[in-house]
Amino acid sequence: MKFSIKDKLKAVLELMRVKNCLMAMIAVLIGAMVVSQVVRPLPFDAINVILAMISAFFICAGGQAINDIFDAKIDAKLNKKKPIPSKRITKNQATVLTILFYCVGLFFAQINEITIFIAIMMVVLLTLYSSVLRKVKYLGNFIVALGTSLTFIYGASAVGVITNTIILFTIAAFFANVAREITKDFEDIKKDKGVKVTFPILLKEKAKSIAIFFYVASPLTAIAGYIFLDLNILYLGGVVVATIVFAKAYELFVKRKYSLAQKKCKQAMMISLIAFILSIVII
Amino acid sequence: MKFSIKDKLKAVLELMRVKNCLMAMIAVLIGAMVVSQVVRPLPFDAINVILAMISAFFICAGGQAINDIFDAKIDAKLNKKKPIPSKRITKNQATVLTILFYCVGLFFAQINEITIFIAIMMVVLLTLYSSVLRKVKYLGNFIVALGTSLTFIYGASAVGVITNTIILFTIAAFFANVAREITKDFEDIKKDKGVKVTFPILLKEKAKSIAIFFYVASPLTAIAGYIFLDLNILYLGGVVVATIVFAKAYELFVKRKYSLAQKKCKQAMMISLIAFILSIVII
Repeated sequence: MKFSIKDKLKAVLELMRVKNCLMAMIAVLIGAMVVSQVVRPLPFDAINVILAMISAFFICAGGQAINDIFDAKIDAKLNKKKPIPSKRITKNQATVLTILFYCVGLFFAQINEITIFIAIMMVVLLTLYSSVLRKVKYLGNFIVALGTSLTFIYGASAVGVITNTIILFTIAAFFANVAREITKDFEDIKKDKGVKVTFPILLKEKAKSIAIFFYVASPLTAIAGYIFLDLNILYLGGVVVATIVFAKAYELFVKRKYSLAQKKCKQAMMISLIAFILSIVII
Repeated sequence: MKFSIKDKLKAVLELMRVKNCLMAMIAVLIGAMVVSQVVRPLPFDAINVILAMISAFFICAGGQAINDIFDAKIDAKLNKKKPIPSKRITKNQATVLTILFYCVGLFFAQINEITIFIAIMMVVLLTLYSSVLRKVKYLGNFIVALGTSLTFIYGASAVGVITNTIILFTIAAFFANVAREITKDFEDIKKDKGVKVTFPILLKEKAKSIAIFFYVASPLTAIAGYIFLDLNILYLGGVVVATIVFAKAYELFVKRKYSLAQKKCKQAMMISLIAFILSIVII
C-alpha cells in the first residue's frame, strides 16, 4: 500500500499525539511564568523559555511514539486505526521518529545543566515506561505523573530559578495525576487483564485506598501554598473551587463511575491551574 | 525459547559490537592527547576526557544496535547468528537498548557546547544512516567516515581546544575512511545488488575514480601537516611509511583484490596513527 506525503504527515502527527505535546508545551510556559513573576519579568529569558517549550514538545512526541511501538500488537486487536496497526507507519519508521524526536528535544534542552538533566531523565523514563515497565503499570502511573508534573519545574529551570511555589505546584500536580491514573486503571480493568498489572488488578478493592490518598493529598498540598507560601486570596479562592470539584471526582470514583470521575479530575486540575496563573498575574 | 542472563548479556555485547566501541574510545583519547600535548598536560582535563570516551563508547553502541534493527530482514537470510535473527534479542528490546545507549552517551557528552553538539549530530547521523539512508549506501560512506574521523575532534573538544593539527588529522582520517568504505563496496557488489545502491553499483567502473581521489587525498593531507604545521621529522617518517602502504592498498584495489586492499588501508591508517602519536609525544 502506498500513502501520499499528506497521509504520511498526518500519520506522524497522530503518532506523536500533538495535543499531548502542546499541553506539555503550555505547562512549561506556565512553570516559567510562575518563577518569572516572582524573580524577574519574562521577556528577559524569553528565548530560553521558547527553547524549553520546543524541547518538551518533542520529548513528549518521542514518548508517545515509542509507546505505540510497544503497543503495536495490542493495538492491532483493539485499535486498528492507529498509525502502526493501520500500516501507515512501520515499526522501523516509528523507531527512527522516536530517536529523532528525542534528539530534537535534547538539542533544544541545552539551556543549562538542570534542563538537560531533566530532559535526559524524562527520555529514559518514558522509554522504560513503554518497554520494560509496560506490564507493571502500577509503577508506570508514577512515571507518567512525574512526567506531567515535572514540565512545570522544567519551565522554571529554563529561567534558571526553582522557587518553593513551583515545587509545591509540581507536587500537587503529581498527586492529582497519580489519582487520575489509578482512576483510569479502574476504568480499564477488563481491557488490562492478562496484559498489564495495574493497582486494581494487583490489589483489587484495596487499590482504592491508594487512590484516595492521592485524591486527598493533592488539594491539601495546594492549600498549604496559601498558608506557607504567602500566596494571595485569589489563589485560595481558586483552590477552594478546585477542591470542591476534586471532591466531586472522588465521590464519582467511590461510586465506581470512573470515566466521569476522571473528567472531573481534569476539570479540577484545570481550575487550580487557572487559580495559580491568576494568583501570580495579580501578585 | 528462554535465554539465561549470561546469554542475554553476551547478545547485548554482540549487538553493540564492543570492539568498534572500544576503538571509538581510543580515538577520543588520541584526539585529547594531541591537543593536550600542544596546549597543556593531560591530567588537567582527565575527567572530561574520560567522560568523552565513555560517551563515544555508548553512542557507537547505539549506532551499531540500530543498524542491526534495520538489517534484521537481510541478516535473517545471510547471517543468522546475529543477536536479532537468532532471537536472542527482540527488535523491541534492541530499540530500547539503542535509546538507552544513546542517552548514556549524550549524558556523558555534557562537557561543553561543542561535545554535546557533536554527540547529538552523531546520534542523528547514525540513525539516519541505518534507516532512511540505508539504501543509498554511497551517501552512507561519508557518514561512517565522518563518524570515525570526528572521534578525534571529539576528544579534542573534551579538552576544550581544537588545533589545526587535530583538524588536519581528522580530514586525513576522513579521506582514508571513505577510500576504505568504497573499496568494501566493490568487495560487496554481489551482496548489495538489489538491496543497496553503492558507488560501484551506481557508477560501475567510474566509481573507481572516486575511490582513487580519496586514496590520493589522504596521504597528501597528512604530508601537508609536515609542511604547514611544523610537525617534526619523526611524523614525516611515519607518514612516508604509511603512504607507501597506502599506495600498496591502492595497487591491490586497482587489481580488484578488494579484500586485501582493505586490509592494507587499515594498516596504513594504523601506521599514520602511530606516527602521529609519536610526533606529539616527542615534541
